Amino acid sequence: MKIAVDAFGGDNAPDEVIKGAASAVKAYGVTVVLTGDKSKIEQRISELGVSSDGLEICDADGVIEIEDDPKQILKEKKDCSMGKALALVASREADAMVSAGSTAALVMGGTLTVKRIKGVKRPAMAPILPGESNRYILLDGGANIDCRPEMLRQFAIMGSIYMEKIMGVEAPRVALLNVGAEEEKGRELEQGAYELLGQTDGINFIGNIEGRDAALGGADVIVTDGFTGNIYLKTVEGMGKFMKTSLKKLFYRNFGTMLSSLLCKKGIRGLIETMDYRETGGSPLLGTACPVIKAHGSSDALAFKNAIRQAKEFCEKNVIEEIERALGEKGDD
Amino acid sequence: MKIAVDAFGGDNAPDEVIKGAASAVKAYGVTVVLTGDKSKIEQRISELGVSSDGLEICDADGVIEIEDDPKQILKEKKDCSMGKALALVASREADAMVSAGSTAALVMGGTLTVKRIKGVKRPAMAPILPGESNRYILLDGGANIDCRPEMLRQFAIMGSIYMEKIMGVEAPRVALLNVGAEEEKGRELEQGAYELLGQTDGINFIGNIEGRDAALGGADVIVTDGFTGNIYLKTVEGMGKFMKTSLKKLFYRNFGTMLSSLLCKKGIRGLIETMDYRETGGSPLLGTACPVIKAHGSSDALAFKNAIRQAKEFCEKNVIEEIERALGEKGDD
Repeated sequence: MKIAVDAFGGDNAPDEVIKGAASAVKAYGVTVVLTGDKSKIEQRISELGVSSDGLEICDADGVIEIEDDPKQILKEKKDCSMGKALALVASREADAMVSAGSTAALVMGGTLTVKRIKGVKRPAMAPILPGESNRYILLDGGANIDCRPEMLRQFAIMGSIYMEKIMGVEAPRVALLNVGAEEEKGRELEQGAYELLGQTDGINFIGNIEGRDAALGGADVIVTDGFTGNIYLKTVEGMGKFMKTSLKKLFYRNFGTMLSSLLCKKGIRGLIETMDYRETGGSPLLGTACPVIKAHGSSDALAFKNAIRQAKEFCEKNVIEEIERALGEKGDD
Repeated sequence: MKIAVDAFGGDNAPDEVIKGAASAVKAYGVTVVLTGDKSKIEQRISELGVSSDGLEICDADGVIEIEDDPKQILKEKKDCSMGKALALVASREADAMVSAGSTAALVMGGTLTVKRIKGVKRPAMAPILPGESNRYILLDGGANIDCRPEMLRQFAIMGSIYMEKIMGVEAPRVALLNVGAEEEKGRELEQGAYELLGQTDGINFIGNIEGRDAALGGADVIVTDGFTGNIYLKTVEGMGKFMKTSLKKLFYRNFGTMLSSLLCKKGIRGLIETMDYRETGGSPLLGTACPVIKAHGSSDALAFKNAIRQAKEFCEKNVIEEIERALGEKGDD
């Protein structure tokens, strides 16, 4: 299996990308095609002293920056490191791609270069988040600022398939993010989506969910528009950081508290791992015709390694074929 | 000063309301008018053994339930405990009111019974939330599901006045909750609001804020529509609960970790206090012609006591006059 990885996406590129790719080759037996300035990548591979076994390089010209107009990925910057990785999957020279670069450019490039699964209205960014006792998927985490009820119905189907196939959750509980439990709550979007979701066979729709229960993991698949989803996602991230800083403050007060942190070491490690986005890999862009994984902008080697593992599983578990089949049955093609 | 308090609103009514009211009388020298079934209130005052000094009772008929249509507060149920408390401020027999009952009914009753400040388009629910090193106010926390840019501008003005007058923040930083920092980000609502906020004199507009920085306290006043605000608010609450449960799990693993919790006692107490909504009181409904405070549904005596203190300060600091003056200057009346 061949995974294309944008070697220049993210805050820690290219070093952490290269290290993560080398570990993934070793751990999962995949081939990784690093896209970006070839001489720089070769130089860093040698300077970092990582093995180049299973690593290929696809030369690319420049990088798409967060502040660039995302449309650039289709025009002036289509040969940049992200653009080349997208082109490799679009032409089926690679089976999947991973990038920690600009989300907006990846959504645009994923949708228009890699193209959509037959029947999919809009791909959704689908981050996987930690709840109290489970992990859950959120769609849309920010790909589509404005959504229609039919889009939320497709998000529910795609998210259910992902949770079942990749995360091993049986009959994943689907909930609609809303301001109250009752059917009539929310805006026109939620009212329309509630009705549609209730009529959709093959998903386990449990109704509306408020932000509080969502954050605790009260459902396995949470659907909402990309504006609300992005606010939700970032708020969870911010509160996670809040929690981490508070723990640090708690234990670094004085000698006694530092001692106590040793006694709680195992629990602290467990908690930090639970909250750590690096463990799950990245966010799949669900709905594209080939697997596209958005790694977190601040990904390190471990996060890239896990995102590559996730890309591999995405291919192996036939998530895309399942989505196509499910939408076909529902007359969406 | 006389504060009307809905004795039958919230999960812990009427006992915790009565106890909180009695403590507030003692601590702040206010008179509290408890609204609700008179004989029940008298009986509980006597059974709880609290002093009835400074407590008055206004007999009311029934309670508005969360599942009731909020319009009932204006019709069949206008004489319920919440309706009577609203009527007391509307007629200026009381200076302010507090209720832990149905938010939707309180918004409707506050807007239509107490009425709006001259020039205010829509009152906003304005919870005060803990950031890493400050407290900040969020408008709208859920009163108006659909908003226009002009409403967000008014929320910014009202929130700034509240933070300055009640919370003592100089030139409070106002930010627009959005999916990115750049001016053009967001939906039509955010794009319109961004422009309007930039043109508004007398507020300290610092631009867009993402959920992550908002949750950490990156602004003093965060404005958004009531749908997004409610999702944000509940998500922060859920993550706060997540944090508390995680801390408990951390310390209750074994003898060593329990011992360590003793060493961290002070820090844990501080952290829990920071996250504790009871400390700030309730959420003001900003924009009504008299102070209306929504106490949290699960308020206990301490929370009610603080909500009554907050109502008192709201009156004393002339927040309403300031809002009227500010909107008048901006030609909103």
